[in-house]
Amino acid sequence: MRTVQNPLKSKAMKCRICGGSATIKLESHNLKICEKDFLKFFEQRVESAIKEYKMFIPKGRILVAVSGGVDSLSLWEVLLRLGYQVVGYHLDLNIPNASEPALEKVQAFAKAQNAELIIENLSEFLPASLEQASKIMKKPTCAVCGMVKRYRFNRIAGEKKFDVVATGHHLDDESATLLGNILHWQEGYLTRQFPVLTEREGMIRKVKPLVFVSKEEIEIYAKLRQIDFIRSACPYSKGATSIIYKQIINQLEKEMPSTKIFFLKTFFKKYRAIFKEDKILANQLKPCSQCGYLTIAELCGFCTLKNKLREKA
Amino acid sequence: MRTVQNPLKSKAMKCRICGGSATIKLESHNLKICEKDFLKFFEQRVESAIKEYKMFIPKGRILVAVSGGVDSLSLWEVLLRLGYQVVGYHLDLNIPNASEPALEKVQAFAKAQNAELIIENLSEFLPASLEQASKIMKKPTCAVCGMVKRYRFNRIAGEKKFDVVATGHHLDDESATLLGNILHWQEGYLTRQFPVLTEREGMIRKVKPLVFVSKEEIEIYAKLRQIDFIRSACPYSKGATSIIYKQIINQLEKEMPSTKIFFLKTFFKKYRAIFKEDKILANQLKPCSQCGYLTIAELCGFCTLKNKLREKA
Repeated sequence: MRTVQNPLKSKAMKCRICGGSATIKLESHNLKICEKDFLKFFEQRVESAIKEYKMFIPKGRILVAVSGGVDSLSLWEVLLRLGYQVVGYHLDLNIPNASEPALEKVQAFAKAQNAELIIENLSEFLPASLEQASKIMKKPTCAVCGMVKRYRFNRIAGEKKFDVVATGHHLDDESATLLGNILHWQEGYLTRQFPVLTEREGMIRKVKPLVFVSKEEIEIYAKLRQIDFIRSACPYSKGATSIIYKQIINQLEKEMPSTKIFFLKTFFKKYRAIFKEDKILANQLKPCSQCGYLTIAELCGFCTLKNKLREKA
Repeated sequence: MRTVQNPLKSKAMKCRICGGSATIKLESHNLKICEKDFLKFFEQRVESAIKEYKMFIPKGRILVAVSGGVDSLSLWEVLLRLGYQVVGYHLDLNIPNASEPALEKVQAFAKAQNAELIIENLSEFLPASLEQASKIMKKPTCAVCGMVKRYRFNRIAGEKKFDVVATGHHLDDESATLLGNILHWQEGYLTRQFPVLTEREGMIRKVKPLVFVSKEEIEIYAKLRQIDFIRSACPYSKGATSIIYKQIINQLEKEMPSTKIFFLKTFFKKYRAIFKEDKILANQLKPCSQCGYLTIAELCGFCTLKNKLREKA
């Protein structure tokens, strides 16, 4: 087996599970563990988050959104190994120098696993690049990209009769988002931040099975499972506020191990409920007059974008 | 008038208040201001926090706890200038190389202002140094020091018939504490974090008039008011967790100006109330059987320490 570097220490350590030689040290769990037991430990923790939050309907059809990055490919791998009925969905965003290698990684993974994969290209339903859409909407590229992806995940899952969309959001993502939402007391977002977004009229159920595993753990998992993923960050992600919160939350984790998981889990268990549902927003949600997607405006963001592009053409 | 460096910029800027030449730039308020108007702005903001939170009883006698540092001496200066009936209290902690110069600064300030000052020495009521007390209590020196100071502030204020004790806690202190309490969901602390701790049997009212001004603003104020304070940090403060939170909150403030004040003010106004009072703790608070100070145990921390020292002697 390959040697895995950092945070796998070479010094003689005992695996807490089997008593054999441990090569991995997880400060957040105060745990020294061997590679074999790490894989079990990781997969069991994903499984237990799925069960605890009742993410999937038994025998439910799961659509997993895969970008080609380490998070989503690892999620796909775990879900397949746990025996779920899961199909991959990749949206090719036509980002220069980034989208082509991403698509290749996703296709290679699906082929090696003999797993079902749906591929769509942005151009099939949007006559513009993300950069053009960003300009026309006067919004950052990341915001437009997120909007388009959420819209499309929901749409394709509905059309192909999936029960749930699973995404690769992990502990670092979710704890950093929570930190940002609390620092700015974003009540609406605080109420809605949860590992499961329940289905409603026009909206497919959405789940985050990796919510309690960290980026570091996912990277070790991917390395041990020999998952080949795209390593470069999206060229549009530079300077995103979410990156600052992630740096901060990881700085805190380093000083005080297990801060992230305690912060997030306790919020879900005890404090999320006390932030009142943003009632105005919840009541105002109604189907988009053009496509039926839930929105607070007359038209959803995606249809607004499409109309603007049509006017320009 | 002296030139004041950083964050006082030399580039031609207009004062937003008087239209004259501004030398101070406050990113958190998106404000360029001249020195004269900064002093007014600063003192008005302290005054408005005092009024908004009804910190003082009209004509109340205020005991201000002064360490000799920039925060507490600036607080004393502002309270005197605002016309309050205020007396300084300095506790000489006998910390080698630190306490002597601190006492000198406090005495010099009182003399120059012709202000009343009460000085006590730790040895008058505790037959041990802070380091010895820390060892005997098996607690960090900062924890023991805080306990002794809180106990003594309350005691002296009660004996000398003051209505309220004012401390120099500022925006950076309070927002950093809030961040730490939220990250670890310290419900009891969250309920009690407020600019005013109301008086109760055996407990003098405590207030924090600097709660909405930042350390940076206090330093500018002290410089402009020519307050001479002790500059070196307490030798025992190294590695304190509170320092990590302060660094983080200031990092966020730099990236997103006014994060600190929004985070803290909104918590006080809207969210503090939703964290249930730590009822068990509140109900258990009863007078110490030895001295009458409120405590959750049979004996308060200070009497426990005194008894332990007596046993050892």
